[in-house]
Amino acid sequence: MSTSTSAALDGGRGPAEHDVRTQIIVAATAHFSHYGYDKTTVSDLAKAIGFSKAYIYKFFASKQAIGEVICANCLGQIESEVRQALQGVQAPDDRLRVLFTVIVEAGLRLFLQDRRLYEIAVAAATDQWPSAKAYQDRIGQLVEDIIKEGRACGAFESRTSLEETGRAVYQVLLPYLNPVTLPHLAPLHEEAPKALQELVLRSLQPHQW
Amino acid sequence: MSTSTSAALDGGRGPAEHDVRTQIIVAATAHFSHYGYDKTTVSDLAKAIGFSKAYIYKFFASKQAIGEVICANCLGQIESEVRQALQGVQAPDDRLRVLFTVIVEAGLRLFLQDRRLYEIAVAAATDQWPSAKAYQDRIGQLVEDIIKEGRACGAFESRTSLEETGRAVYQVLLPYLNPVTLPHLAPLHEEAPKALQELVLRSLQPHQW
Repeated sequence: MSTSTSAALDGGRGPAEHDVRTQIIVAATAHFSHYGYDKTTVSDLAKAIGFSKAYIYKFFASKQAIGEVICANCLGQIESEVRQALQGVQAPDDRLRVLFTVIVEAGLRLFLQDRRLYEIAVAAATDQWPSAKAYQDRIGQLVEDIIKEGRACGAFESRTSLEETGRAVYQVLLPYLNPVTLPHLAPLHEEAPKALQELVLRSLQPHQW
Repeated sequence: MSTSTSAALDGGRGPAEHDVRTQIIVAATAHFSHYGYDKTTVSDLAKAIGFSKAYIYKFFASKQAIGEVICANCLGQIESEVRQALQGVQAPDDRLRVLFTVIVEAGLRLFLQDRRLYEIAVAAATDQWPSAKAYQDRIGQLVEDIIKEGRACGAFESRTSLEETGRAVYQVLLPYLNPVTLPHLAPLHEEAPKALQELVLRSLQPHQW
């Protein structure tokens, strides 16, 4: 996580400011994961970290600004996990299976293991924070890229519009990406984790007409 | 709505009790749709209707028991709307399109027009009330029936297990059925309302292998 944290924090500012920002984020992540995001104020956070509220505001404009960085780190971690799992997987249908499986598992793990930190993800999705929106766009792009590769090698059909089909497949996945909807769909997913993937893959099959 | 209300209320009891129950349900529906379900107590409701709390408890064991009947009526109404829209539609692919379209539209209408009554639907889905569970099972069965008809006339593929494929198609629809998840997916649905249906239909196409 340290690498992606640094990357997300580094906005081209000086190292001193960078270090303080990292320190605040690390402490805030620990604090939120214990006490929750929703009910914690910047004052609570400042007290817990041992900084003044004014000092924290020098580095972050609001509680949401802190939440945004934590959220970006969490989503970045899930995305890295997905991209790592995809490495070495060649067949386009398997790549789509891996994408669906890893992304749902990672989301459920975050929900089950870190309920209080999960509040940040819920706020991010509900209020459409830029970090959440950017993540969704990148995953949508990844879906389209996999379909495009599959079309290029003849594994997937090429009759339909790539963009429309990419969005439709992403739309099947989205309820399991969205942290608000995922917990409500988890029981169904456990029951039939592969059914959805296989339905999508059948819809992508190339055929003679 | 009066017909389905009567049907839902008629548990084989005498007409007098039946009338009082109907009267309570009608008044409670009006009250909840104005003041919301979550924050209203049976005492509030009794006061508003002009009955004693004890009298209401003679007919309903709890606030949830009243909510259950209202929920069953609402879901029954959506289901009637779907079944009515399906009448006269013969082609299996069109039947699936109608099912997807009408059920999402009806759910969104309930959410947008009657936010406070929608609280009942959210409670029903979250706590898995029997009325919500039974509704989901009936819609799942309807999906399977349409696929079965489509297989019988050669419009849909028959290679996969009917039960598994039926559940997979239902799983695509479910996030748009569930009152908790639907509002979070509505923006995407408006953008691409047909994309999901067409993906599902492509997955069902019969082909030579």
